[in-house]
Amino acid sequence: MGRVGDERRLRVVVVGAGFGGLQLARALAGAPLEVLLVDRQNYHLFTPLLYQVASSLLNPSDIAFPVRAMFRDAPNVRYRQAEVTAVDLERRRLELGGGERLEYDYLVLATGSTTNYFGNASIEARALGLKNLPEALELRNHSLACLEAASHEPDAAERARLMTTVIVGGGPTGVEYAGALSELMALVLDGEYPIPRALGRIVLVEAQERLLAAFRPELGRYTEERLAAMGVEVKLGVRVTEAHDDHVLLSDGTRVESRTLVWSAGVRAADVEEPLPVPHARGGRLEVDAYLRVGGFAHAFAIGDLAGARDDGKELPMLSAPAMQQGRFVARYLRDVAAGRDPERRGPYRYQDKGIMAVIGRNAAVAELGGMTFTGFVGWAVWLLVHIYFLIGFRNRLAVLWTWWWNYVRRDRPVRIISSSPPPRLLEQERLRALVVSDTGPRSLRSATPPREP
Amino acid sequence: MGRVGDERRLRVVVVGAGFGGLQLARALAGAPLEVLLVDRQNYHLFTPLLYQVASSLLNPSDIAFPVRAMFRDAPNVRYRQAEVTAVDLERRRLELGGGERLEYDYLVLATGSTTNYFGNASIEARALGLKNLPEALELRNHSLACLEAASHEPDAAERARLMTTVIVGGGPTGVEYAGALSELMALVLDGEYPIPRALGRIVLVEAQERLLAAFRPELGRYTEERLAAMGVEVKLGVRVTEAHDDHVLLSDGTRVESRTLVWSAGVRAADVEEPLPVPHARGGRLEVDAYLRVGGFAHAFAIGDLAGARDDGKELPMLSAPAMQQGRFVARYLRDVAAGRDPERRGPYRYQDKGIMAVIGRNAAVAELGGMTFTGFVGWAVWLLVHIYFLIGFRNRLAVLWTWWWNYVRRDRPVRIISSSPPPRLLEQERLRALVVSDTGPRSLRSATPPREP
Repeated sequence: MGRVGDERRLRVVVVGAGFGGLQLARALAGAPLEVLLVDRQNYHLFTPLLYQVASSLLNPSDIAFPVRAMFRDAPNVRYRQAEVTAVDLERRRLELGGGERLEYDYLVLATGSTTNYFGNASIEARALGLKNLPEALELRNHSLACLEAASHEPDAAERARLMTTVIVGGGPTGVEYAGALSELMALVLDGEYPIPRALGRIVLVEAQERLLAAFRPELGRYTEERLAAMGVEVKLGVRVTEAHDDHVLLSDGTRVESRTLVWSAGVRAADVEEPLPVPHARGGRLEVDAYLRVGGFAHAFAIGDLAGARDDGKELPMLSAPAMQQGRFVARYLRDVAAGRDPERRGPYRYQDKGIMAVIGRNAAVAELGGMTFTGFVGWAVWLLVHIYFLIGFRNRLAVLWTWWWNYVRRDRPVRIISSSPPPRLLEQERLRALVVSDTGPRSLRSATPPREP
Repeated sequence: MGRVGDERRLRVVVVGAGFGGLQLARALAGAPLEVLLVDRQNYHLFTPLLYQVASSLLNPSDIAFPVRAMFRDAPNVRYRQAEVTAVDLERRRLELGGGERLEYDYLVLATGSTTNYFGNASIEARALGLKNLPEALELRNHSLACLEAASHEPDAAERARLMTTVIVGGGPTGVEYAGALSELMALVLDGEYPIPRALGRIVLVEAQERLLAAFRPELGRYTEERLAAMGVEVKLGVRVTEAHDDHVLLSDGTRVESRTLVWSAGVRAADVEEPLPVPHARGGRLEVDAYLRVGGFAHAFAIGDLAGARDDGKELPMLSAPAMQQGRFVARYLRDVAAGRDPERRGPYRYQDKGIMAVIGRNAAVAELGGMTFTGFVGWAVWLLVHIYFLIGFRNRLAVLWTWWWNYVRRDRPVRIISSSPPPRLLEQERLRALVVSDTGPRSLRSATPPREP
């Protein structure tokens, strides 16, 4: 078998159970390596459908899959719910919240990305993000609470404010949430609330001159037309300059009266700057070499949104596809190491671009796959199949398909409940509580950020 | 048609969208009355299945149905999310949180019940309740977080504490949660956590000498045997005297090391003492006359857990069945009033006892229906059919049936996610935020009233 170290198997620590870390750990299941997967949350989150939780269509558990359940049959992969507070690349050691230290032979950092407010404090204080589960639930609760408040608000101006949502960022997340919110409004305002349909206002603000800048221009124009037909006001070439409790100021001088500001205009790599004294690329991403190794260390990798990986000199986008590919790439590399083979024998990592897609609404999506573009019903069907395929777990696939079918046929949004849930209490391990709460604040490997009020 | 007041229809305000208030409002749909249904939450909660949310089996939305969705086709029934802070029975007026006043012609109070800690402050500070949705989610998060903490706890004593759950109260809620928790532990400890099965300890404490005191004695004994076979330690004739962060003291002198205390040992009527200067019965319930009217007022009713209704001199139990019957009874009464008929012509309210039931686990339940008793698989099947029948919404029925089937066949608990969600923010109406948060504390109509039993 040619195993190296049959006495002591190599220990791989993977930080982050997102798309990259999860693919890596799954690809190492059964390998002659000890794998420890560390994440702050006890679930893997299928973020591409997060906006459907925020818009009252899906349940959190439909897109959040418990990490432990995935590794029931892989005794060499263990899971640990923890926050990594420091990494010592020289001594191959990392520190967890609470002070505990772990040693590793190989480290893979896959901590993903977090919302980037580009230093605008007024926006950061007031905007609702759409990057993790607590944020999506907060947005759901907030938008439903605004509808309830508007339904009996005597002041017409305040009523209009409560009924206006400003979405910043015309990328896939902003477009998808705008479409889903428009459908939700159409559904509930026609029948359930004493509020005229026309009062529900959605403003989508994008700094560039077109929507979906990563797509071909004609798909951006198609998206703009479809959203306009659904009643969404699209403002291109405009930025949000200031956010206030009851209004938002735009760079073209417009003042939009609104109580809801949704931010999907940028992400940056999850902050590991302090513990990792290695070169950084744009957006806080870590510089990696052709084999995704970090800072010249042979035993440390970065993958996914955190890694500033390049192909043909071009930095790869922050998407699930490169993250998953990189996870599998590093898994093959580590399997070679464990087997005593040259891990560089397959050559450096190359990105396989499978395409991009975004859904706008009922029977409307845009997709670029293998040189072809799809729109309308075909694009929508392609989008649907791809997302069901990549969703984890047979049960989740059935549950989501069934909910989509129900929504398609019955035009119902079943999860319209305003419900908060406190983090675990009564635990001596206060840091576990901090873990769950702090996820509503900016993500970072360091827990220095004070948790928002419970 | 003989309508009274065609110029101005009578206005009925119903406070509470639980089993009683909801049945009432539904039975008044289409009647020549204006109905306003007020509740602090925007959903009706099917509380009999709440323990399945707490034990990671069901999604909140499976048992929480948006109130507005139920009255889409009933234009005479409106809904308002609000807290009632005061009632003036003389002037037929009530006050909402925020100071707004509403006038009514008829008032129906259906505010239900809340957890009763009988004045034990140490228990109240540390126990987890199981009476509303935030409590159930908190219990789910807490028990899963304890498992995570135990999985890497080096100290054996602390590990045992984290793995021990004390459940107080051997009524249906305590029995059902004990059984469901035992099944969850069996499932996850055999395969997902590096924790021996034997370490998972569940202690069910009941002050009376038998479980399910409302049932026939042989059903209590059957329940005790089944729970014991599932590994639950049943302690009868014992009370919890003190709760501490890391242990619980029992009245027999035992000290149980535990980090989880679940309280299902008593409820009392939701507190309306201050605003309602009317006679009270046991457990804070309002005295009602034979027509469920309150304090001698012809225009105010109390139904459900809040009402100390009697039949043959015996006070009715706090169950969904009497609440629903009383809701329909008052609806008929009000329809008679609206039609100009004598509302007392049908005679006083009589309780139709349809039976009681509780589920213990897989193929095991106890039921008393129409003079017959059922146990084992038959009791379980009866329990299942009745609960599916009474669950609201075709979609919820399908979702719950499907999840039960999945659990039965695959032995999986799909909703094992530790996730907190903050209440709505950014709202000027701070009280809406308070509404959603305060539900994790003791329930009361007056949010300012400290929850103390005299």
